[in-house]
Amino acid sequence: MPRYTAPVNDTLFVLKDVLGYERYTNLEGFADADLEMVEAILNEGARLAENVLQPLNQIGDSQGCVRSADGSVKTPEGFAEAFRAYSEAGWTGLSVPAEYGGQGLPYLLHSAVGEYMSSANMALVMYPGLTQGAIAAILTHGDETQKNKWLPKMVDGTWTGTMNLTEPHCGTDLGLLRTRAAPAGDGSYRISGQKIFISAGEHDMSENIVHLVLARIEGAPEGTKGISLFIVPKFLVGDDGAIGEANGVTCGSIEHKMGIHGNSTCVMNYDDATGYLIGGENKGLRAMFTMMNEARLGVGLQGLSVAEAAYQAAADYARERLQGRSLTGAKEKDKKADPIIVHPDIRRTLMTIRATNEAGRALLLWTALQSDIAHRSQDEKQRQVASDLLGLMTPVVKGVLTDKGFDHAVMAQQVFGGHGYIEEHGMSQFVRDARIAMIYEGANGIQALDLIGRKLPMDGGRAIQALFAEIGAFCEENRADEGMVATTKALKKGLNDLQGASLWLMQNAMQNPDNGGAASTDYMHLMGLVVLGYMWARMIKTARDNLAAGTDSKEFLENKLVTGRFYMERIMPETALRFARIQTGADTIMALSAEAF
Amino acid sequence: MPRYTAPVNDTLFVLKDVLGYERYTNLEGFADADLEMVEAILNEGARLAENVLQPLNQIGDSQGCVRSADGSVKTPEGFAEAFRAYSEAGWTGLSVPAEYGGQGLPYLLHSAVGEYMSSANMALVMYPGLTQGAIAAILTHGDETQKNKWLPKMVDGTWTGTMNLTEPHCGTDLGLLRTRAAPAGDGSYRISGQKIFISAGEHDMSENIVHLVLARIEGAPEGTKGISLFIVPKFLVGDDGAIGEANGVTCGSIEHKMGIHGNSTCVMNYDDATGYLIGGENKGLRAMFTMMNEARLGVGLQGLSVAEAAYQAAADYARERLQGRSLTGAKEKDKKADPIIVHPDIRRTLMTIRATNEAGRALLLWTALQSDIAHRSQDEKQRQVASDLLGLMTPVVKGVLTDKGFDHAVMAQQVFGGHGYIEEHGMSQFVRDARIAMIYEGANGIQALDLIGRKLPMDGGRAIQALFAEIGAFCEENRADEGMVATTKALKKGLNDLQGASLWLMQNAMQNPDNGGAASTDYMHLMGLVVLGYMWARMIKTARDNLAAGTDSKEFLENKLVTGRFYMERIMPETALRFARIQTGADTIMALSAEAF
Repeated sequence: MPRYTAPVNDTLFVLKDVLGYERYTNLEGFADADLEMVEAILNEGARLAENVLQPLNQIGDSQGCVRSADGSVKTPEGFAEAFRAYSEAGWTGLSVPAEYGGQGLPYLLHSAVGEYMSSANMALVMYPGLTQGAIAAILTHGDETQKNKWLPKMVDGTWTGTMNLTEPHCGTDLGLLRTRAAPAGDGSYRISGQKIFISAGEHDMSENIVHLVLARIEGAPEGTKGISLFIVPKFLVGDDGAIGEANGVTCGSIEHKMGIHGNSTCVMNYDDATGYLIGGENKGLRAMFTMMNEARLGVGLQGLSVAEAAYQAAADYARERLQGRSLTGAKEKDKKADPIIVHPDIRRTLMTIRATNEAGRALLLWTALQSDIAHRSQDEKQRQVASDLLGLMTPVVKGVLTDKGFDHAVMAQQVFGGHGYIEEHGMSQFVRDARIAMIYEGANGIQALDLIGRKLPMDGGRAIQALFAEIGAFCEENRADEGMVATTKALKKGLNDLQGASLWLMQNAMQNPDNGGAASTDYMHLMGLVVLGYMWARMIKTARDNLAAGTDSKEFLENKLVTGRFYMERIMPETALRFARIQTGADTIMALSAEAF
Repeated sequence: MPRYTAPVNDTLFVLKDVLGYERYTNLEGFADADLEMVEAILNEGARLAENVLQPLNQIGDSQGCVRSADGSVKTPEGFAEAFRAYSEAGWTGLSVPAEYGGQGLPYLLHSAVGEYMSSANMALVMYPGLTQGAIAAILTHGDETQKNKWLPKMVDGTWTGTMNLTEPHCGTDLGLLRTRAAPAGDGSYRISGQKIFISAGEHDMSENIVHLVLARIEGAPEGTKGISLFIVPKFLVGDDGAIGEANGVTCGSIEHKMGIHGNSTCVMNYDDATGYLIGGENKGLRAMFTMMNEARLGVGLQGLSVAEAAYQAAADYARERLQGRSLTGAKEKDKKADPIIVHPDIRRTLMTIRATNEAGRALLLWTALQSDIAHRSQDEKQRQVASDLLGLMTPVVKGVLTDKGFDHAVMAQQVFGGHGYIEEHGMSQFVRDARIAMIYEGANGIQALDLIGRKLPMDGGRAIQALFAEIGAFCEENRADEGMVATTKALKKGLNDLQGASLWLMQNAMQNPDNGGAASTDYMHLMGLVVLGYMWARMIKTARDNLAAGTDSKEFLENKLVTGRFYMERIMPETALRFARIQTGADTIMALSAEAF
């Protein structure tokens, strides 16, 4: 069984030294957690992840969830107890306002700890993860009565939540949605229809399940303009908060999936179920995006999390497995062979994963910080800038970190040779689990379209211009620093490719939208390469400053510089390939008839 | 369930028009199968693949193999009957000499049909596939008595074969091998030890299983110099060919694997089992490589096969799934949405897979042709040139086509969105099955080391120089053809990168072997990009010639040209990235201590 150690030191380096956590005491919640407390929170989260969640990861995969004939679902052994421990420690409500039972701390900390939790047991953490999405929607769009009724018990883990969007014939294209909502006359609605792929849709871990369901009110406009969002609980709840009778919602079956077996993915049948409108008639899509945007960051985090867990397992195996001799002569002569970590190709594999993980961690935390600023700053201009960056980074974090997370789980599995293919080593599970993150909450192709079609042109390109300006300013500021020349040169080259590609899109995608679609995935990855490179540039700068100032974490910082150099030399040059592909346009892609494929 | 249609027309295009099949009647066996017969053979193979093997593919995955307490193994429903049909049609012995019951036809045809078989059911076809490797070893290294005793019944499917190399502590590094062979006094040996990961090691599909086992004769030198190869049958066989008593070999357990569930991957225990030396004392490694080299081409073919099957399934889904509207306005206005094949990003996905598959098919057949020339030509010089190319291409075919095969199975799965993650659609199986091909018969990192460490420097770089000369000559010959300018320019650019990288290796890997190891995987993929590009250049040239000459397959040839252009524009530029990475050397890769990972 793989071991897992939460990278608390690396998180602290990013929070404290790179992002300058202490500069944000003006934001609500930040002053409540000084750096000492931050460290305590990270260590507490690490302990739960390592000792409670991780030991259940393979059990969850091998046992899976089992549905009984009565529609009830049994989760794997130990999952309910672990979820209880997670809830009781307050992790679900870490960044939820105190008035609804939360701790009101920065979302940034929630993300930092969230990485550890998903590394340890992705399938299990999805139960509170989905709940968090539902909480966010109710917090933002619910009225005060709804918030008071539903939130506290979701925050404390007595109840969980879900998101019900997809139907058999409608995934990305929510305009095709058929689930109906009929006014019941008492202010509530009767919901009928079928939803599929509902994560945590039914299980035995909480007293109630609060489903957030997209449906179409009778007579509503066609397409996405006629969609509303409803709270549909598994059990009705009295005004006193007491659990009442069962609602008309049942789990029809659970899916047989490639991975995340520990999470119950349900077909949910709604049959005149009582639902409560949230966010206004026909405003469901807006409310849904509140859930989705937060969930997308959470999915990007899963990509990083699984890659990190897989990396650690591969590094351990590479240190232990004796096979062959170093190309430069035997390193452990007293043994029959050297550990395979002496081999450059194994190290190339590990360095590739590591370089992306460390930058991915920084990117996630930087993006989470934008979320805190966007939601908590008193300064309107600061809020707007942060909100722009948050919007721009959301598809990049989701799309790029999950594509890379999967690729890197596969690379880590490869380090194990044949043993990686055998389930007991746990590497196959990482690959199978990581795979879903590229698909759900909007498949990565949709993220790419969201980026080029919505986020780029928004407000006249304000967000992308701000990103260009920020990275450009960083390069300019460090121009005189000889030790930063190689870094800023590589970053600048990547930025030029990104700017060139953005200009190409402006000139070519307007006249022919297919040029945009043909470029979209390459463009998303191009932006990912550049912002991860920017994170590396900032980390390199910080590591150099800290080393110059004298420090007791010399080795940590020197390894950081090596890993950063690896990224700049080996990974950053991919921007040129992405840019070259983008410029070829849509001609060859659109030429064949549908039948010719 | 995905459908599968064998790409017979594309195979014929490569065999007949690109490779000029009819020019090789001088080679033994080629004259026995004229083009008409080739087409009949391909169609016959296609029928078996589509109608008999493919319908069992998902059954094999979901049922898997089951071992009973007595060590016997039950294969999935229908597998034994399908294997019988395969054997009786003569596919196992297609290219085996007639004197041992085969048909003596070109290995080229065996490869062509082999693609269809593995596309249809990779796990099932591994049973005769392993048998073929064992046949090749006995053919090359066995004495006449051994050949007559073992081959005919392996060829006709009465018996099957296996390869027993790996032990728990020893995979790549066969020098660590511990299985012992003690002379029994009667010319035979007593074999004792444990082998793992033995594909088709035990099953219920044949009367006997002929294990080829690497072991160390008592007193043999340490390391790889002291390894011998033995024939160890499951049941002893009398001189009259009759099955006798059970030998001391049993299946201890079967592995719980990520994929290829239909194939029984066994732990095999040898306990004083009777074995017969083959190929001479301490010459086991050489004999083993006879099995391995052919097996490596067969594994490369699996990469292509699964990618092709996944591609076809994704194309079907993309034509059928209605979701969203074309970026350039609704295409099917009478429907609620357009099929997703209108979307450029879906088409980019399909074109990427298609462009690699078509070139991969050509590369495999071109390499198989080299194998036929190397083994069957009367001209020594011709044999040597072909043998050089075969040796050079073997790690490239294995490493590149399986890496790409897996990546492309993943891309095809992505076309299905959430449905791709559900086992019943079959896309997960493609991904899980394809994954093993990157690992077995030498993990792809080992292929890359074989390429740079053994194949490149061999005979003073004769093979790589011949490849450079051949591709260079092609570019030169077509210089004057305006319609070929874009193609030869892109190919030439890739060739320059490959030549530059080869020179860099010569200059840097000698002085520091770690520079070679750090470059190896990128170099292997760089060579893969260039030889696939060369295949495209030849296909483009042929398609243009055929179009100019007038033809009734105009659409086929025009689609070929579009797909070739896509490869040259979108995939070929990756050579620059690979070359850039190679030149960064080993510094950052070797810098960290083992503990720092």
